Amino acid sequence: MARILSLTLNPALDLTVPLARLEPGEVNRSEAMITHAAGKGVNVAQVLADLGHQVTVCGFLGEDNLQAFETLIARRGFVDAFIRVPGETRSNIKIVEHNGRVTDVNGPGLVISEQAQQALLDQLARIAPGHDAVVVAGSLPLGVSPQWLQGLLVQLKNQGLKVVLDTSGEALRAGLNIGPWLIKPNTMELAEALDCPMDSVMQQVQAAARLHSQGIEHVVISHGADGVNWFSSGTALHATPPKVSVASTVGAGDSLLAGMLHGLLNFDVPETTLRRATAIAALAVTQIGFGISDDAQLARLESGVRVRPLTEQ
Amino acid sequence: MARILSLTLNPALDLTVPLARLEPGEVNRSEAMITHAAGKGVNVAQVLADLGHQVTVCGFLGEDNLQAFETLIARRGFVDAFIRVPGETRSNIKIVEHNGRVTDVNGPGLVISEQAQQALLDQLARIAPGHDAVVVAGSLPLGVSPQWLQGLLVQLKNQGLKVVLDTSGEALRAGLNIGPWLIKPNTMELAEALDCPMDSVMQQVQAAARLHSQGIEHVVISHGADGVNWFSSGTALHATPPKVSVASTVGAGDSLLAGMLHGLLNFDVPETTLRRATAIAALAVTQIGFGISDDAQLARLESGVRVRPLTEQ
Repeated sequence: MARILSLTLNPALDLTVPLARLEPGEVNRSEAMITHAAGKGVNVAQVLADLGHQVTVCGFLGEDNLQAFETLIARRGFVDAFIRVPGETRSNIKIVEHNGRVTDVNGPGLVISEQAQQALLDQLARIAPGHDAVVVAGSLPLGVSPQWLQGLLVQLKNQGLKVVLDTSGEALRAGLNIGPWLIKPNTMELAEALDCPMDSVMQQVQAAARLHSQGIEHVVISHGADGVNWFSSGTALHATPPKVSVASTVGAGDSLLAGMLHGLLNFDVPETTLRRATAIAALAVTQIGFGISDDAQLARLESGVRVRPLTEQ
Repeated sequence: MARILSLTLNPALDLTVPLARLEPGEVNRSEAMITHAAGKGVNVAQVLADLGHQVTVCGFLGEDNLQAFETLIARRGFVDAFIRVPGETRSNIKIVEHNGRVTDVNGPGLVISEQAQQALLDQLARIAPGHDAVVVAGSLPLGVSPQWLQGLLVQLKNQGLKVVLDTSGEALRAGLNIGPWLIKPNTMELAEALDCPMDSVMQQVQAAARLHSQGIEHVVISHGADGVNWFSSGTALHATPPKVSVASTVGAGDSLLAGMLHGLLNFDVPETTLRRATAIAALAVTQIGFGISDDAQLARLESGVRVRPLTEQ
């Protein structure tokens, strides 16, 4: 069991609304409304908890709608290091029609003051020591610059933590510069951050070599149902998940990340690490939520994952 | 200042989402998301508080999303007598596009168990004495029958409270039987409950006479911008509000009800009571929210209300 710090700078309340058919301009009656405390770092934290780790959650929460987060934190036994800021954490509404069409309405989220940003850095200076690794996952809230994220990552690295970064766009570009320990972009995110195509294995091998030279130890590149490539010193593996029927892809990438971190901190052999991480992500896809509630099902999926060296085609 | 009990059996969290344009099936980014603790009884309570009354709020709240309600209750200094039940209070999402089109997505709300229904009756048996009046406003949640509402109203009446009822459909029909002290349907709601048209003044006069004979002292019939008719022993008045530019009609009916109750408990002369209540409703219409934050503006609107006996045309 490791002690892991999980940072969600821009969490969200996911509000899922199943509906027969969305009629714009009308009064629509939904069959249910389900609220979940979410955000990539919060999702990763949940899967890590399922894997037996002690997790501290941190980031920014709006003090006007804390309840779903505080309930989850208490239920999961997380250490709560979130900075409270004025206002409401954003809501992401997902209207799901019977025909499968999904309409997302995403809130703008909190604007984080410089004072709150400093409070988070101070908080991390106090609490980060004693953790084995830190996951920084998701987008940046309004008011927070990629440069500030870079400073935060440097601080965490200097505090001796293994830094895991899962973000995109300008934030990923800025983060790559400080040489995180592990990154997990998908092919599109990496192509955008490096400004070069990432379609072939050769392009990925070259990108990984460049990223290794910048001090990034583990480059995990996901491409959905096609599987995962993992490049690290002496390791270049590809995993293909078993075919599953898709219930929802929410949390699949977060599950893959948690699984990779679990195997690495456990010093599992690389093949085992990647196989289990891929199976945990596949398990997430089969569920409306995510997480590991069925060990037998996970074991079945693990046995269906195909792992091979990337030199083999 | 009176002590008033306000019951909201089916409260709601109003989530207002301004948006340039709603694109079904796409990821829409909203400019803001504003959550309000709402429901007719809660709205009435807020206007009564603005008018200087001590209000106890009661009804059913889901324990999974209490925060907005508890914050409002604390800020307003309400006495909190809500029964907490498992689950989430329903959310009513209002997507407001730049062109003014509004798409409502309303949640199904809580299912209230028999145990919780009994807990509310027990709670009211304890706390109702000492209040001057009780407002029962809004729809019935799932699990609650019109017959149960009728029993609740009888209990409150037997406890010596003036019972004010503002509901519609089967609930109004059931409630009329017990002879509440005051009802405030709009013309459509009354027509539906009595199963006869309510378009002419003569039809309303006849309906009011029938309702008076059932023990209903005050019959207040609203018809939006056309104004209000009020029938009680010796009083038959019509009020026409001044023309205002409409920002939102949310809370206008609740404001009218609070204003009527205020004047009646204050023993104001009928003309003053109806004039002020009509102005408070007009004020609500000029605002995105409702309530009395601008006394000067209320006074201006009051002077613009035209009140006349219903015998004059």
